[in-house]
Amino acid sequence: MPEQLRVLPHVASTEQSNEGPLTVRSGRVKHARRLATRAFRDKTGEFLAEGPQAVREALAAGAVIEVFATSKYDDWRDDAVTWNVVDDDLLGEIADAVTPQGIVARCRSVVGTLDDLPAEAGFVVVCADVRDPGNAGAVIRCADAAGADAVILAGDSVDPLNPKAVRAGVGSLFHLPVVVDGDVAAVIALLRERGLRVLAADGHGELDLFDPAVDLVPPTAWLFGNEAWGLPEDVRDLADAVVAVPIFGRAESLNLATAAAVCLYATAWARRRDPEVDVRN
Amino acid sequence: MPEQLRVLPHVASTEQSNEGPLTVRSGRVKHARRLATRAFRDKTGEFLAEGPQAVREALAAGAVIEVFATSKYDDWRDDAVTWNVVDDDLLGEIADAVTPQGIVARCRSVVGTLDDLPAEAGFVVVCADVRDPGNAGAVIRCADAAGADAVILAGDSVDPLNPKAVRAGVGSLFHLPVVVDGDVAAVIALLRERGLRVLAADGHGELDLFDPAVDLVPPTAWLFGNEAWGLPEDVRDLADAVVAVPIFGRAESLNLATAAAVCLYATAWARRRDPEVDVRN
Repeated sequence: MPEQLRVLPHVASTEQSNEGPLTVRSGRVKHARRLATRAFRDKTGEFLAEGPQAVREALAAGAVIEVFATSKYDDWRDDAVTWNVVDDDLLGEIADAVTPQGIVARCRSVVGTLDDLPAEAGFVVVCADVRDPGNAGAVIRCADAAGADAVILAGDSVDPLNPKAVRAGVGSLFHLPVVVDGDVAAVIALLRERGLRVLAADGHGELDLFDPAVDLVPPTAWLFGNEAWGLPEDVRDLADAVVAVPIFGRAESLNLATAAAVCLYATAWARRRDPEVDVRN
Repeated sequence: MPEQLRVLPHVASTEQSNEGPLTVRSGRVKHARRLATRAFRDKTGEFLAEGPQAVREALAAGAVIEVFATSKYDDWRDDAVTWNVVDDDLLGEIADAVTPQGIVARCRSVVGTLDDLPAEAGFVVVCADVRDPGNAGAVIRCADAAGADAVILAGDSVDPLNPKAVRAGVGSLFHLPVVVDGDVAAVIALLRERGLRVLAADGHGELDLFDPAVDLVPPTAWLFGNEAWGLPEDVRDLADAVVAVPIFGRAESLNLATAAAVCLYATAWARRRDPEVDVRN
């Protein structure tokens, strides 16, 4: 029998809190630790949020199943949530972070499928084959800050529930719809069908972000590619336009998160200045 | 006698290449490895550039003293530079990066003091107490991309020659003046004396970056604070204005590099649209 299945009975018992002091061998601790792997996250539909900021957002979103925290978080206790008081050493075993800052929450997945993409989304961010969890989290945070309506992790992108992605996202995962879909072409087709212009961000784009020909006011989806090799040509060809953040100095390029920040804020700003655009919030 | 001093005679001999195959115990290898510490970088005025992109820029800038590379870089050889062919294992011992990509260069420092700040600099970036080397490198890269004239690492900021900062900067360190000064107040005073408006970037700024009252066309210095606690009040008080990147969604803030990207590109764009501004390059 695979080891994962043998662990499941323990999982069921984790809703009780009368199993004595938790140790690294406790079922609920083992279960939480396994959420470090994508396979176990996919299987359980759960993930870990680490650190006070992410846990606060997870609690506010009603996504938390149970919390592991040191006693300094005792006044955060929430009766709707199993609350395990643990020491720093045990927390270090559960958390992915080197310094988990005293609190980790086991959460229900907040990531959806393309069916969960809001019908009215007019400002969408698509990551295609983005592999680095820190980058994925930073783009989600940036999309949230810029007021985007959704983020789609497409193709062979990193799992947005990866602990490093959740950390880099600093709670933004709980603020806007985040959707995963393996088929970049299908994502682009759906967005275009919904009337969004798909702009591929690429350093060698034929248009410059600040070119007046780049109208960012209509419903827009930005497509960002892999941090090392960008967007493959066949994907760029599916976009309505390929747009570059201009390089005014001698840098060869910007990194993914900073390029996304510039594109998304240019879009947010264009859309907000236009009285025709209904920007919510 | 401190160990550092005992190493120095080996250093002098590293200009010869007749000491046989290099090993982890060779003087030049030991010397290069010590450049991982700020103390030894400060003492020697040297640092390491890792990976093909950084080494290419370092060679172009004439900053390289010697190269350690696997044989796959043999066609990069430069007669002006001592060229050590090493295997991946030894390279791994020299480099800070987990995957040094086959090439590391020992370079002369390209970092100056406030005296090296170009007199005509009209677009300057100041990091005050920025501690994370990845962030410092990302801001330097971003400043380069946006066409800034100089970057100042002020106060208790990380050394821009830290291997992680150099890597995150992807060669931008060689593209524009990078200056270190321990006294944030003195840096601000000098910039104001030179006629630059000093804008402190802060999420709680009284002005919004996109507010028409924020005129980014005149000579401008941006001041970015520590990634965790931002700019202390006494430093903000020295600035001409405190400016926030607006948050349109529900994120609490942007990370340092993405906030810098938005501010610096807004500035680059404002200055480039204005026919009065003499933007070089």
